[in-house]
Amino acid sequence: MNELMSTEQLIYLFDVAGVAVFAITGALAAQGKKLDILGVVVLGIVTALGGGTIRDITMDVHPVIWIADTTYLWTAIVSAVSAFILCRYLTYPRRLMLLLDALGMSLFAVLGAQKAIALNMPPVIAVMMAMITGCAGGMIRDILTRQIPLILQRNGELYATCAMLGAIVYVAMSGLIEDSMLMMISITVALVVRLASMYTGLE
Amino acid sequence: MNELMSTEQLIYLFDVAGVAVFAITGALAAQGKKLDILGVVVLGIVTALGGGTIRDITMDVHPVIWIADTTYLWTAIVSAVSAFILCRYLTYPRRLMLLLDALGMSLFAVLGAQKAIALNMPPVIAVMMAMITGCAGGMIRDILTRQIPLILQRNGELYATCAMLGAIVYVAMSGLIEDSMLMMISITVALVVRLASMYTGLE
Amino acid sequence: MNELMSTEQLIYLFDVAGVAVFAITGALAAQGKKLDILGVVVLGIVTALGGGTIRDITMDVHPVIWIADTTYLWTAIVSAVSAFILCRYLTYPRRLMLLLDALGMSLFAVLGAQKAIALNMPPVIAVMMAMITGCAGGMIRDILTRQIPLILQRNGELYATCAMLGAIVYVAMSGLIEDSMLMMISITVALVVRLASMYTGLE
Repeated sequence: MNELMSTEQLIYLFDVAGVAVFAITGALAAQGKKLDILGVVVLGIVTALGGGTIRDITMDVHPVIWIADTTYLWTAIVSAVSAFILCRYLTYPRRLMLLLDALGMSLFAVLGAQKAIALNMPPVIAVMMAMITGCAGGMIRDILTRQIPLILQRNGELYATCAMLGAIVYVAMSGLIEDSMLMMISITVALVVRLASMYTGLE
Repeated sequence: MNELMSTEQLIYLFDVAGVAVFAITGALAAQGKKLDILGVVVLGIVTALGGGTIRDITMDVHPVIWIADTTYLWTAIVSAVSAFILCRYLTYPRRLMLLLDALGMSLFAVLGAQKAIALNMPPVIAVMMAMITGCAGGMIRDILTRQIPLILQRNGELYATCAMLGAIVYVAMSGLIEDSMLMMISITVALVVRLASMYTGLE
Repeated sequence: MNELMSTEQLIYLFDVAGVAVFAITGALAAQGKKLDILGVVVLGIVTALGGGTIRDITMDVHPVIWIADTTYLWTAIVSAVSAFILCRYLTYPRRLMLLLDALGMSLFAVLGAQKAIALNMPPVIAVMMAMITGCAGGMIRDILTRQIPLILQRNGELYATCAMLGAIVYVAMSGLIEDSMLMMISITVALVVRLASMYTGLE
């Protein structure tokens, strides 16, 4: 894969994919709340772009990600609308939502660490940025829909841990392995640990 | 009206009016929560200035609106205190609050779009800024007072839609009509649709 | 004390102390919520650094406090972990938490006012920054753990009032008394009024 595209392209692809899956979780979280389509889109956008916005503002990176490139905003809108249409008659798909949330969290955590390292931040800040980018959007979603935030639920016990694990792998090995390979390894670590914690006795 | 004052003066007037009505909704939302007067003022300030603060920080406009001109802060404080005194012995005035909230949302949505356009942001960002400016303050108010956010309530189904409609009218016709006239048209569109959705079968 | 250290050193000491006590309140608030240790650390960090982060971003001070000096982040982490280990088998220590919260609020309120005055902000902005710095972290903690924010509770009636009182004393006498002495006086005023309101008939 990294023979076919540059690291920049891979980062962009992962960023857009993270936005799409988080926007879908926002739309799914709106299920059963009698929201109109725009309420669903708002929830999708906030979930998808909330983490990256807080990360960019905190590190004084301007313009923030979705102002610099409106692709992210359109991706969030289209993903939320599609999920709204497809899922209208389904009951609340808790399992699918947890799966997509795990994927979005893994992608965003590693991308957050990657951006901090690229800005020469110290390792502990990179880990913080990973957790902000990976966890903040989902937390805002859960607060708005009055769910107990996943990060504070029993099923979500290892939520922040997985974001941190992915970030630590990335930060520790940064510069030692080729960057796009390292990103894929770190994302896989975060995702596998999260899924394992969801589907085993920890659940 | 636009013969009597410049566009800048009109924007300023609308901004201050929006701050005043949102601060009052914050004070009204505190009804029945046994808050002291300063708690009410805090809730009023957060509601009135929350949306504009997030808008300015996201677009890297510094100093933010209420640091640049303390009139906004004083307006929020005086409005919240007045509402606290006047409404102390009333029961929760739900209808009045919805009405003022609709007015504040309409004013702030169009002002948010106007500010983004003035900074040469693309149309979709201007619409986002309209929704942030118009909806964020009220959402923070609702979260703090543990109400289900208006934007996620059945009665509030068309809440974000109205902010978006006003913004779309403004963005689509920007440059075609004289700016202060266009602002008044866009605000009227947002407000009328919101009131219509509140007082008709949608309620 | 101010013979032994400079004003800068005193500010630094108070800032680190505020971070430590707020991080502990975050860890205590996690009691009984079946959080794993990292969830507790996240809650501690958000509580300890939330107020200062919002203050710095709003006043466009970059890098924000915990990016400029990672001591704050480490202090929050170590404090939260220690509290997690020490308190694991205790029942929810409401009284201790209220006491530490009062101390953190008093320290941060005066430090917020001090920073705004040092940036030549007008007095009303300095009071706002005091309230943001002193109250925002605890409010985020309470929202995340689904407590009614202390600031909106009956027992917390005078919460924001105490932050404001400390800030007003600091702002009114700024330049008249030696700065480190003034900070200690202002912090004491905020803390004593808060404790008095907690332990008297107001409770």
